[in-house]
Amino acid sequence: MLVKGEHYRTIWPNKELSGVTIIDQTHLPFEFKLKHLRSLDDVVEAITFMRVRGAPLIGISAAYGIAIALTKNPSDKSLMGAKKRLLKSRPTAVNLSWAIDTIWNEIKNEPVNNRVSVAWKLANKLANNDIETNQNIGKFGIKVIKKIKKTPINILTHCNAGWLATIDYGTALSPIYNAFKDGLDIHVWVDETRPRNQGMSLTAWELNQANVPHTLITDNAGGLLMQRGEVDLVIVGADRISTDGNVCNKIGTYLKALAAKTHDIPFYVAAPLTTVDPSYHGNNNLFNIECRSEDEILKIKGLDASNKVKEVQIGFSSAYNPAFDITPSKYISKIICEKGIYNPKDIGKVLK
Amino acid sequence: MLVKGEHYRTIWPNKELSGVTIIDQTHLPFEFKLKHLRSLDDVVEAITFMRVRGAPLIGISAAYGIAIALTKNPSDKSLMGAKKRLLKSRPTAVNLSWAIDTIWNEIKNEPVNNRVSVAWKLANKLANNDIETNQNIGKFGIKVIKKIKKTPINILTHCNAGWLATIDYGTALSPIYNAFKDGLDIHVWVDETRPRNQGMSLTAWELNQANVPHTLITDNAGGLLMQRGEVDLVIVGADRISTDGNVCNKIGTYLKALAAKTHDIPFYVAAPLTTVDPSYHGNNNLFNIECRSEDEILKIKGLDASNKVKEVQIGFSSAYNPAFDITPSKYISKIICEKGIYNPKDIGKVLK
Repeated sequence: MLVKGEHYRTIWPNKELSGVTIIDQTHLPFEFKLKHLRSLDDVVEAITFMRVRGAPLIGISAAYGIAIALTKNPSDKSLMGAKKRLLKSRPTAVNLSWAIDTIWNEIKNEPVNNRVSVAWKLANKLANNDIETNQNIGKFGIKVIKKIKKTPINILTHCNAGWLATIDYGTALSPIYNAFKDGLDIHVWVDETRPRNQGMSLTAWELNQANVPHTLITDNAGGLLMQRGEVDLVIVGADRISTDGNVCNKIGTYLKALAAKTHDIPFYVAAPLTTVDPSYHGNNNLFNIECRSEDEILKIKGLDASNKVKEVQIGFSSAYNPAFDITPSKYISKIICEKGIYNPKDIGKVLK
Repeated sequence: MLVKGEHYRTIWPNKELSGVTIIDQTHLPFEFKLKHLRSLDDVVEAITFMRVRGAPLIGISAAYGIAIALTKNPSDKSLMGAKKRLLKSRPTAVNLSWAIDTIWNEIKNEPVNNRVSVAWKLANKLANNDIETNQNIGKFGIKVIKKIKKTPINILTHCNAGWLATIDYGTALSPIYNAFKDGLDIHVWVDETRPRNQGMSLTAWELNQANVPHTLITDNAGGLLMQRGEVDLVIVGADRISTDGNVCNKIGTYLKALAAKTHDIPFYVAAPLTTVDPSYHGNNNLFNIECRSEDEILKIKGLDASNKVKEVQIGFSSAYNPAFDITPSKYISKIICEKGIYNPKDIGKVLK
C-alpha cells in the first residue's frame, strides 16, 4: 500500500535491530508513525496495546515475535516462554495461535544453532504468504461486487479488515481495492466501529490514501441505509470462523448481518483460511471473546484546536466492553477466501 | 427529578425575564448549567442546537416559544412568524407541530390583549400535562417489567427518553424509575447512542442522579448481549409514530429491534399519544428524517486532563449523519402510552 507515494507493509524485519519495524496504528489517523520492536516484550506489548491489530497481522507479528525471542536466546526454554506469552497477548483471533503453532512445529526439533535463521525465514514466508492470500481474496472477491448492476455500487464495511489488518491488501478491503483498480464505480460506507473506531481511524484513512470514494457513518446508521436501498452489499473480515461457517468478528458485525438478511442484501465475510478454527464447530465457541478495558468506551483521542493529540473523557459511568460477537452462518451469504467463494457451511471442507 | 438533592424540571417559566429557564443539555454530563431564554430567537436556537431535545420537551419548548414571542408582540403577524420559525427548528418529532398547533388553535381567535396570558397559561398546562402523562406511562409500563421473573431484570434502552427528554419522569425511563422505586432488582444497559451520545451523556447521567444501577455499552454491543441472554427487555422512546404503529426514533433503534425480534426479547416503545401522527400511516412517511451536521460524527467533547471541556476532532473523511430511523410495527411488542399498553397496530384507534 502506498502512503504519501511510498510503499509500506504493516510490519517488516529490521536486521540492524534484530527486530521488526511496524506502523504504530494507535497513532492513526492523526500521525503516521513507525515503531521499532526489539524484544519479545515489545512485540507482546504491541499486540496487547493494539499497535498492530487485525487477525492476520496479529498472527504474523507473533511469528516475528518468536524469531526475535530466539535471536536473543534460542533455547527450548526461551522458545516455550515466547509461545506462552504470545498466545496470551490477545485471545480471540485464531490466526495468532495458528502462526505460533506453525512456527513452533517447524522449529522445536531444529538444533538450537539453526533456530534463529529458520525462524526469521519462516516469519518472512508467512508474511509473503499473507500478501499472496489477500491478493487471491481480492481476485475472487471482485466477482461478488461485479454482480451488482448499478452505479455507484454501495458497499458497507465494519471495523478495519484492510491493508492495516494484514501485511498488505487486506481481506474485506482487498476485493474493494481490486474493484476500484478495475474502474468499477464503487462507494464504501465506513462504520466508525466504536469503541476503538477502527473504521473511522483506519479504514477511512487507508481508503483516503488509495482515493477510494467513501463516507463515514455511525454504527447506528446501517439499518436505515439498508431500509432505503442505499447498501448493495456488505463485506467484513473475521477473527475466527467455525468449520460450519459461524463468524466471530468485531462487535456490531452481528447487528449488520441481521439487517442485511432482513433486506435481502448479500453479506460476505472475506478471510484467509487461517481464520478457520478446526476445533470450532457449531456452538462450541469455547474460545474467549475478549472483553477490553472500559476506558476504550469512556475516553477518546482526537486533535485539539492546536492540532495536538489529546485524550478526553466522554463518559462517567461504568462500562462493559466486549470486543467481538458471533454471526451465525445462516446470516452469511458466502465466505470469500484465498481458494474461492464458498457457502459458509462448507468452509471446513476447504481446509482439508 | 432531583439533581444533587434539588428538584428540577427541564424547562420552567421565568417571570422576571418574560422568558423561560432551561437545563442546557449540551453541557451534560460535564456540567449542570441553566440557561435563560428571553426571546423567540433564543428558543429556536435552543431547539436547533439541542440545548433542549427529546420529542416531548421539544413540543413544550415550542409552546413556551410562542408565549415568549407574543409577550414581545401579540399581533397576528408575530404569532404566525413564531409558528413558522418554530416548525422549522427541528423536523422529525411530531410533538413539535402538535404543541404549536394546539397553542395556535387556542390563541389565533383570542383578542390581541388576551393572547399573552392565554399563551403562558396554556404552555404551563401542556408542561403539567406532560408530567401527568409520563407518570401514567410509568404506571402502565412497570407491568411489562414485572412480567420478567428473574433478578436482576436487564433492560436495554437507546438514546435518552428519560426525564431530560420530557418535563419530568421521562417516557422510556418512567417505567424504569417506577420499578426502581418499587424495589424491583433492575439493571439498565445504556447504549451510548452515537453520534451525540445521548445515552452516555444524558441517560447515564440521570440514572446516576437517581441511583439506578446501569452500565454503558457501545451501540454495537446489544446483539452479543441479546445472544447471551443478558437483555430481558428493551424500552425506547419515539419521535413519531404512525397510526398503525411504525416508530420513528433515534438512529440505531431499528438494529436493536431486529436483534430483539431474533432473540424473542420483548421490545417496547413508551411514548405519549402526542407522538402519534394522525397523518402518518403505513409507509407514507412523508416527514423529514433529519440529517444533521457531519461534525456531530467527526468532533466530540470531553474533559481533558485538567478537567476542562475540550472539543477534539476524531474523524477526517466526509460523514453522513441521519438522526432517526423507522422501526416497522411488526418488530414492536407493545406501545406503552398514558392510556395503557397497546398493540402497535391499534395505536391509531387510541387517539380517537
